[in-house]
Amino acid sequence: MTHEAQFAELKQRLREISDLHGAEAVLGWDQATYLPPGGAEARGRQLALLGRLGHERLVEPAIGRLLDALAPWADAQGADSDVAALVRVTRRDFDRATRVPSAFIQRLSEHAAASYHAWERARPADDFAAMRPLLEKTVELSRELAAFHPGYANPYDALIDLAEDGMTVATVRALFTELRAGLVPLIAAIRACPEIDDRCLEGAFPEAAQQAFGEQAIRAFGYDYGRGRQDKTAHPFMTKLGRGDVRITTRYRSDNLSDGLFSTLHEAGHAMYEQGIDDGLDGTPLFTGTTSGVHESQSRLWENLVGRSLPFWRHWFGVLQAAFPGALDDVDVDTFYRAINKVRASLIRTEADEVTYNLHVMLRFDLELALLEGTLAVADLPEAWHARMHSDLGVSPPDDRDGALQDVHWYGGIVGGAFQSYTLGNIMSAQFFAAARRDLGDLDHQIGAGHYAPLRAWLTDRIYRHGRKFTAPEIVRRATGQPLSIAPYLAYLNTKYGALYRL
Amino acid sequence: MTHEAQFAELKQRLREISDLHGAEAVLGWDQATYLPPGGAEARGRQLALLGRLGHERLVEPAIGRLLDALAPWADAQGADSDVAALVRVTRRDFDRATRVPSAFIQRLSEHAAASYHAWERARPADDFAAMRPLLEKTVELSRELAAFHPGYANPYDALIDLAEDGMTVATVRALFTELRAGLVPLIAAIRACPEIDDRCLEGAFPEAAQQAFGEQAIRAFGYDYGRGRQDKTAHPFMTKLGRGDVRITTRYRSDNLSDGLFSTLHEAGHAMYEQGIDDGLDGTPLFTGTTSGVHESQSRLWENLVGRSLPFWRHWFGVLQAAFPGALDDVDVDTFYRAINKVRASLIRTEADEVTYNLHVMLRFDLELALLEGTLAVADLPEAWHARMHSDLGVSPPDDRDGALQDVHWYGGIVGGAFQSYTLGNIMSAQFFAAARRDLGDLDHQIGAGHYAPLRAWLTDRIYRHGRKFTAPEIVRRATGQPLSIAPYLAYLNTKYGALYRL
Repeated sequence: MTHEAQFAELKQRLREISDLHGAEAVLGWDQATYLPPGGAEARGRQLALLGRLGHERLVEPAIGRLLDALAPWADAQGADSDVAALVRVTRRDFDRATRVPSAFIQRLSEHAAASYHAWERARPADDFAAMRPLLEKTVELSRELAAFHPGYANPYDALIDLAEDGMTVATVRALFTELRAGLVPLIAAIRACPEIDDRCLEGAFPEAAQQAFGEQAIRAFGYDYGRGRQDKTAHPFMTKLGRGDVRITTRYRSDNLSDGLFSTLHEAGHAMYEQGIDDGLDGTPLFTGTTSGVHESQSRLWENLVGRSLPFWRHWFGVLQAAFPGALDDVDVDTFYRAINKVRASLIRTEADEVTYNLHVMLRFDLELALLEGTLAVADLPEAWHARMHSDLGVSPPDDRDGALQDVHWYGGIVGGAFQSYTLGNIMSAQFFAAARRDLGDLDHQIGAGHYAPLRAWLTDRIYRHGRKFTAPEIVRRATGQPLSIAPYLAYLNTKYGALYRL
Repeated sequence: MTHEAQFAELKQRLREISDLHGAEAVLGWDQATYLPPGGAEARGRQLALLGRLGHERLVEPAIGRLLDALAPWADAQGADSDVAALVRVTRRDFDRATRVPSAFIQRLSEHAAASYHAWERARPADDFAAMRPLLEKTVELSRELAAFHPGYANPYDALIDLAEDGMTVATVRALFTELRAGLVPLIAAIRACPEIDDRCLEGAFPEAAQQAFGEQAIRAFGYDYGRGRQDKTAHPFMTKLGRGDVRITTRYRSDNLSDGLFSTLHEAGHAMYEQGIDDGLDGTPLFTGTTSGVHESQSRLWENLVGRSLPFWRHWFGVLQAAFPGALDDVDVDTFYRAINKVRASLIRTEADEVTYNLHVMLRFDLELALLEGTLAVADLPEAWHARMHSDLGVSPPDDRDGALQDVHWYGGIVGGAFQSYTLGNIMSAQFFAAARRDLGDLDHQIGAGHYAPLRAWLTDRIYRHGRKFTAPEIVRRATGQPLSIAPYLAYLNTKYGALYRL
């Protein structure tokens, strides 16, 4: 068999796996949007089946043999070629998948379902005790999962690497330590300032008008409704159901403007990344964003660096006022801009402002590392959470509902590997934005004119179109010419919030 | 291996096939409701994959071996037992599936996709010539398909039997001949009467109010929105996405009341059948309605025998008037009742009244039989259509758009086996309704009181809960105590239309 024929066979197999994932995404999207309550159990079964079929096809020995046979031929086409990247990334996925026995996956997914189910009741009931045995088992299973992946300095490294190729506890910790050193004085300085008045964000904001305004804004960004759509869900998300079908979901609060608005911009950032991937990669593992961190960099870039900027609102504020007759008549753009950027230590990560958000992430990163390393017992987690919130943010949750039970992540089956990507995304968003500004000239002027095409074209060229061809560190270096660095992010925060709070 | 263990293995395999069909239904529903245009191609690929995986699993030799081993053990549990029915029906599906080579299925589905695609353009363009070579190939492939199934007196029998277990050309033709003999004088008598004035159905009927009224009516029927939902599509349909998830779709015209209203009642009839199947049959081939004809009997029963009856509207007409303030103020319930039952020879089957509808079906049945037998050439089909419409209904389409290009069926890949079920459904709907009336006492009074629970319970007990356990002839005999007969249907039409037209 020629290499070309082997490569065609590999692609044929990968296409089937990709179509199974696409079908799974359709079922998942429907589950979150329109599934009637009576259909929940059958849907769970259908989803489990599609997941299993996709996994079975990935771990087939024939894939390993094709990858072995193709590696030298693929590498000969150049490390940056689609072919070499495809073989390289598939090899990584294949090795990761084959290392984990299917009996373990079965155990893990059954436990994950049970834990998630219990958490859905335990969180509103503020019942950490009910979750304790389940979380203990989750920690144990997470350690077991890490142990299937050899060759890491720290077992936790394996879990981080699964989400963020090439990242380790050491690299993340170094970045976070440096970032913390920059954030703490900024937060202290802001805390000494008078509070910003953000009452203009509260009021009566009809959902239909929120939806229409958000749609107008993200259409202007370049989100393509011909290759996507927007629906309502309890928790906003972005999902790709197949080529040309990248959907977002939103949640609105009729008494508050910012929740629905900024989550729309956020999910549109994720979606434009997926819509911007080269169609030639369709049907392969390269046809998705490269890592959670880089993905988050795009949602945060469009949400925060564009969507919470003064130039953006100089263009849009009049449109917003017109969309809600009467509600914002007495507000000027500067007041609005200050309100949407108010910094205040708070209990809930997903509602945190740009500056304090990262402290929430660091808290989770450190606590989950301690859980995995065994230096923190699950029983002591609520107390550790309280103490850390108090020392880091000066606020402390009155209960576990808004404390250690807050995020679904630990209760969805795995402890470790998820949270760091949120802050990595923030860091990268500023680094990408600074590089785009350098290349595009007066970016503020373009944004102020409602003109996003140059920025989106730059992001598409440097990041989006490559899909998963490169790792996060490679993408950063290619896009910006520099290694990953927190300097642009700290500069961005210091400049923006220095001006806002007149520091 | 014990029989119990073999049976468990069979059920495990069938459950997977059923979950694949469910996943396929989710993708199909989304394709018709919310899929963005850009996602069409990928969705086609995903659907084809799921269809193929389901088929591959059904034709596995292991299924045949299990069925062989289980048959005597299953039969020993009694022909009416779930176990015996499961083995019997699975054997039928297995034999039918294994007889057709997968290379043929591939050829057929590629041709079907090409033909459907071409028809979508050819019908609006009134371009029968463009469809002619495709339809010729469809006829050829349909004959080939029939030939894979041996043992039928007429090759067309195989195609009918695939949709209507136990029916043949001879039995259908005998029923249709008898029915035609009863319909022709009724239609002639009606034609001699003054036309009914149905202008009250035209006007401004806002879509949201139509939706709300339809929902209220079918909730009263017993359609369970907790195990289903309703969305808008270009063509209304019912689909089952899994246990507890049976959805319907509707199309509304804001200038006409009847289209959206009666298609809602119609699809709800299909859906209540699926919702009424015994949950214990979930995950098996028994967990669906038995044949297209029996399915249609339920949509037509709720749409026509209930929904176009005078008692029904005595209860609902006031609610309808209130739903459309001003639009029906000058109309009384008798005028409305007459309007929704107006008989008029017309060009389009799906818009035909109860009486002339069956002539449309007979026309298609006879023409497709002639195509398959080679006594009618595809090239002569438009002319034959015109001639038959003229002789049967006294009207003739000015073009092929509303003639031989009208229905999708022949252009979706197969000629033969689909149309007869519409009229069989009509016939059965009246036979079931008459038997229910006999058993339930004053059914008109119950319907007039908006009280549908007894009727639905009767239908559930006699028909719905059994799923596919029994064939259509068996279901008719069990539910009514009689073999399939046109007498109740002709009696229903003669009584109802005799009164309406004062014949």
